Amino acid sequence: MMIFRLIAVCLIVASTLNVEADEGMWLYNQFPKKMLKDKYGFEPTDEWLKHVRLSSVRFNSGGSGSFVSSKGLVMTNHHVGADALAKMSTADRDLVKLGYHAKSAADEPKCVDLELNVLMNIQDVTGRVNEAVKPGQSAADAQLARRAVINTIEKEAFDKSGLRSDVVTLFQGGEYHLYQFKKYTDIRLVFAPEKTIAFFGGDPDNFEYPRYDLDICFFRVYENGQPAKIEHYLSWSRAGAGDNELIFVSGHPGRTSRLNTVAHLAYLRDLQFPQTLDLLRRREVLLKTYGDRSLENARRAEDDLFSYQNSRKARIGGLAGLQDPAIMNKKKADEAELRSKVDADPKLREKYGTAWDDVEKTIKFVKTIRTEYNLLEAGQAFNSELYGIARTLVRMADEDAKPNAQRLREFGEAGRASLEQQLYSEAPIYPDLEMVKLADSLGMMTEMLGADHEMVKKVLDGKSPRDRAAELVKGTSLVKVDERRKVAKGGKSAISNSTDAMIRLVRTIDPRARELRTQFDQQYDEPQRQAYAKVAAARFAVLGSTTYPDATFTLRLAYGTVKGYEDEGRKVEPWTTLGGTFKHAEAHGSKEPFELPESWLKSKDKLKADTPFNFVSTADIIGGNSGSPVVNKAGELVGIIFDGNIQSLVLDFTYSDTTARAVSVHSSGIMEALRKVYGATALADELGH
Amino acid sequence: MMIFRLIAVCLIVASTLNVEADEGMWLYNQFPKKMLKDKYGFEPTDEWLKHVRLSSVRFNSGGSGSFVSSKGLVMTNHHVGADALAKMSTADRDLVKLGYHAKSAADEPKCVDLELNVLMNIQDVTGRVNEAVKPGQSAADAQLARRAVINTIEKEAFDKSGLRSDVVTLFQGGEYHLYQFKKYTDIRLVFAPEKTIAFFGGDPDNFEYPRYDLDICFFRVYENGQPAKIEHYLSWSRAGAGDNELIFVSGHPGRTSRLNTVAHLAYLRDLQFPQTLDLLRRREVLLKTYGDRSLENARRAEDDLFSYQNSRKARIGGLAGLQDPAIMNKKKADEAELRSKVDADPKLREKYGTAWDDVEKTIKFVKTIRTEYNLLEAGQAFNSELYGIARTLVRMADEDAKPNAQRLREFGEAGRASLEQQLYSEAPIYPDLEMVKLADSLGMMTEMLGADHEMVKKVLDGKSPRDRAAELVKGTSLVKVDERRKVAKGGKSAISNSTDAMIRLVRTIDPRARELRTQFDQQYDEPQRQAYAKVAAARFAVLGSTTYPDATFTLRLAYGTVKGYEDEGRKVEPWTTLGGTFKHAEAHGSKEPFELPESWLKSKDKLKADTPFNFVSTADIIGGNSGSPVVNKAGELVGIIFDGNIQSLVLDFTYSDTTARAVSVHSSGIMEALRKVYGATALADELGH
Repeated sequence: MMIFRLIAVCLIVASTLNVEADEGMWLYNQFPKKMLKDKYGFEPTDEWLKHVRLSSVRFNSGGSGSFVSSKGLVMTNHHVGADALAKMSTADRDLVKLGYHAKSAADEPKCVDLELNVLMNIQDVTGRVNEAVKPGQSAADAQLARRAVINTIEKEAFDKSGLRSDVVTLFQGGEYHLYQFKKYTDIRLVFAPEKTIAFFGGDPDNFEYPRYDLDICFFRVYENGQPAKIEHYLSWSRAGAGDNELIFVSGHPGRTSRLNTVAHLAYLRDLQFPQTLDLLRRREVLLKTYGDRSLENARRAEDDLFSYQNSRKARIGGLAGLQDPAIMNKKKADEAELRSKVDADPKLREKYGTAWDDVEKTIKFVKTIRTEYNLLEAGQAFNSELYGIARTLVRMADEDAKPNAQRLREFGEAGRASLEQQLYSEAPIYPDLEMVKLADSLGMMTEMLGADHEMVKKVLDGKSPRDRAAELVKGTSLVKVDERRKVAKGGKSAISNSTDAMIRLVRTIDPRARELRTQFDQQYDEPQRQAYAKVAAARFAVLGSTTYPDATFTLRLAYGTVKGYEDEGRKVEPWTTLGGTFKHAEAHGSKEPFELPESWLKSKDKLKADTPFNFVSTADIIGGNSGSPVVNKAGELVGIIFDGNIQSLVLDFTYSDTTARAVSVHSSGIMEALRKVYGATALADELGH
Repeated sequence: MMIFRLIAVCLIVASTLNVEADEGMWLYNQFPKKMLKDKYGFEPTDEWLKHVRLSSVRFNSGGSGSFVSSKGLVMTNHHVGADALAKMSTADRDLVKLGYHAKSAADEPKCVDLELNVLMNIQDVTGRVNEAVKPGQSAADAQLARRAVINTIEKEAFDKSGLRSDVVTLFQGGEYHLYQFKKYTDIRLVFAPEKTIAFFGGDPDNFEYPRYDLDICFFRVYENGQPAKIEHYLSWSRAGAGDNELIFVSGHPGRTSRLNTVAHLAYLRDLQFPQTLDLLRRREVLLKTYGDRSLENARRAEDDLFSYQNSRKARIGGLAGLQDPAIMNKKKADEAELRSKVDADPKLREKYGTAWDDVEKTIKFVKTIRTEYNLLEAGQAFNSELYGIARTLVRMADEDAKPNAQRLREFGEAGRASLEQQLYSEAPIYPDLEMVKLADSLGMMTEMLGADHEMVKKVLDGKSPRDRAAELVKGTSLVKVDERRKVAKGGKSAISNSTDAMIRLVRTIDPRARELRTQFDQQYDEPQRQAYAKVAAARFAVLGSTTYPDATFTLRLAYGTVKGYEDEGRKVEPWTTLGGTFKHAEAHGSKEPFELPESWLKSKDKLKADTPFNFVSTADIIGGNSGSPVVNKAGELVGIIFDGNIQSLVLDFTYSDTTARAVSVHSSGIMEALRKVYGATALADELGH
């Protein structure tokens, strides 16, 4: 199937493509060893795959990383670690901006609420999940049955192993696999560079290439108060990867929509992406103007602001792909061909023929509830940490009164420890920022539903959005973690007797929000899973089974080669160098965000100017892969993914290697900077060089 | 009526308000002399009013100003003059940023396309306009008849006087007045300060108070190559205005919606403001990211970026007012009372009873076409100077083939010279920026109508928005002014034979755009004018006739007093001082946008620190009043309006003087800066001090 799809892509989307293309975010338990051997003469052994998998780390704050020493050292991107850095910072000590360097173990401070996961094993439970749903069952019953069996599988697995156990949905509902993770929650900070070099070039250079960023950050996982002993970690490559060398990327791509039906893509194109972009721009402008008022404001808003800007740029790129007729026409042609083959075979037709229309029906339905659903259930109307905490407390009390199998997925017993890690986090909450965010989002709800909407009136309680937001933030005690624990301990009665303003607000909203959730789960999510299971089965039947599911923030292995490209007639080299960094700064007048930190300016003469700094490869990645190790055939670390170029943003919908590239920091550049700029001898030694 | 409305406002909106409030953007020909005399013991004579009116200047780029010497010197804000400054700038010489100081007449450079207007006389033509519309006529016929009589009145007046002649609509259709202007088009730059002091505090301080801005700019009007001899200009006040002193503001408030019906306000609140804000944020983010890429990009985008940020902040404030139940409930109560009085009187009821429902019908209608209308007719889909030029050329050719009375308003003969001033402007157009803006707006159209919409397909012609934008900008010659003249001269046949990409695009769109325009004019604008004429008449009948129309960017006279206020318990003084400026910079770490220019830092010790710099007053102003002279009873200039505080943004819908304030630069601060910071002796001498 891969080959069929890729030939077609070549002809229509980009005529220079050929079957050599390195498409695929592969499941570790379905890796196409033979395909790789045929193309590159290298077949990874099961041991090789296991070693790389167990060296890979998921950051639950949203990103990837890897073990790089036997003493629990983990490397990720600065921008993945930034959430943890921000939570450890104060007005006087901004770790995101200044960076950090622990000279010894005693200097390694503990992160506030970071959780890291290592994928220990994978089990296909598709059969058990699907058997729980009886033929002819209504979508509502089917959804309840499916939820029950998934909650049960997770709890059984957790009880047996003590491992975090998640049933993950693959192929949009085509398969269900049980993923079990070893979990680390005592994570300490070892090293971070200054933001000015980690994110050198800022928003203008984000998603661009050539790049010159030291986007790295080191943490250490502890167990029982000691650095964890790690069996599987990646050795540091002395040479790094050469031009055209085969490399692998092991990480957690967040979400792609390549297997979506055309109707589903049109929905993303015409409705979901545009509205998400409106929301992102709105919040970007809000936080920018809040941050512009003072340096302390800027620090408080910084991490969220980066994340909105980053998503905005990524979504604009994705939407441009969806709006490109070349891509959409290709999708239409592929779907038409598959459907005509299904329709031509009476057996296939009977089993799968209606699947595409079934997907479209779910989309028609969700359009009728999406505005209210996004606002009330997904929480877009309540852009506030404190609201989120109140909502978790209210729901937890209700859900805990039910048997595990009947609970909403996020309140199942298997995931409880991770939920509590977030709920009782000591991460700082800033009331002034809470008011600004909440006032804006209440205003947005008022705009979207209309000021005369019954729910708007209930929420605002006769006040303006600004006044109501102030009242809510001033009227809650949930900023104190002890108070959260007290409410949680009190269960349903503590909730119903509470006079806390946020909890009372949640109580007002929750009946309607739950109705919307049920409608969403039963009339959108469940029938869509069933329909996509048929699409996936039809695809397997017609095109064969060597394929990979869309990205779902679960561990995948991609491969590709280090390779430059041509951009509008200009040749782009695969590498940049440390020396080029200083030239790039000068070319932009060394003005923010092209201002290098003092430490780099002082070390300029010490650095070997031709050391590779950043490089591009054809590996198939997307957001969430940030921090993924780049590994050579020997299983050594040769780099770390931190970005894709602007041309890579269409990878959300279709793979191409003409100009789309993954962007990494090179292992040699990291080592040179650690030793010469930062004098981080102990850390460099621990990495083995 | 004023008094009735204000008492009610006091009770419900802001209980500290009383009948002393200085509400009103008064027409010069309907100024409430008696009301003023009763309150302040000062009755301006007709001569006084005439002098101030003829000293007032309208900037057609959007703002106000005044004559300040007999030799044609005009003062306005830096941010009003910025459009002209940007058009005179190049990559090497950024006048917006650096400022300018002409030491002698020979150094005064000519502006590219600036037009200034002085209001010579006003004539009420309501009777003639309304008589043209026959009872029982369809809305379509009525619209055509009304347009014809207005075009005819303007042309007759223009032919007779040679003055620019505009029929302006007041009271949303309640009255029509003929305004005749003396027009100046040879305008030269005399003085502008650096942007850093003109807009000190930037977006964070915009619409805030206390403020420290030298937001001024001097131009000179020329006639026949010589400085114009001006009879009516404002003398410079030696002392400035004292605390609680009565002052007047003569300028051009852009738009208010105070007389709108509740249904109309709800439409603004729930639809128009939110969508405008989405558009503003979108363009703000677009230009910000474009500008961040290089200093030259930043220069090119600067003026538009400021304007989007300024509008965004103003609209957010306005929307907050509309979303405040206190304000909206007051509007509802007022309307209910007026309607009940109308309904109680059979005669009034028969004449005006349906007016409010008639307004609502027009709103229901416009909702059905507004998306397409805004995109295609109002041009939101085509955010490009070159597109605008092409569209003017195409329409001009069509309209010029018709008798004057039957033309679209903007192509009438009376306004032709002003239209050509814009069309043949030599202002620079940057193709790279054009592509970025057009690609984004074509993308927006695709989002809003859906990629499968027939018109979207026609416009994009099988390409992605980005590719199509590049093709259009590369495929037009209209960047050359000669080419525009050539096409215009060729009339309809030049248009239909043109191979210019932009002209061909306009031809594709124009039939549908014109349909939408006709529907808008005939099913929204005309019936709404008729309905509001009834609302206005009902209001006069019930409440008496001493009132003022909503702002329409025509000359108005407001009054008020210099007065501090309380903001959340903190006393805000009416004045800031020059000395405070340096403290304000230090309090923000002297970092952009709180960085003072070199010229100020050098002159710090020379400046009298306690000189008043900015001050607040209760005068009733809104956007468009920027640059308005602030005048004392003696008719002397005591300041220049440049902003309103954040609390003033609700003035769009309702007047309040509790905390809403107009913000001005003080005449003393201006004089001190001109002499001590800039050594502008000749200019200061010309001002008379």
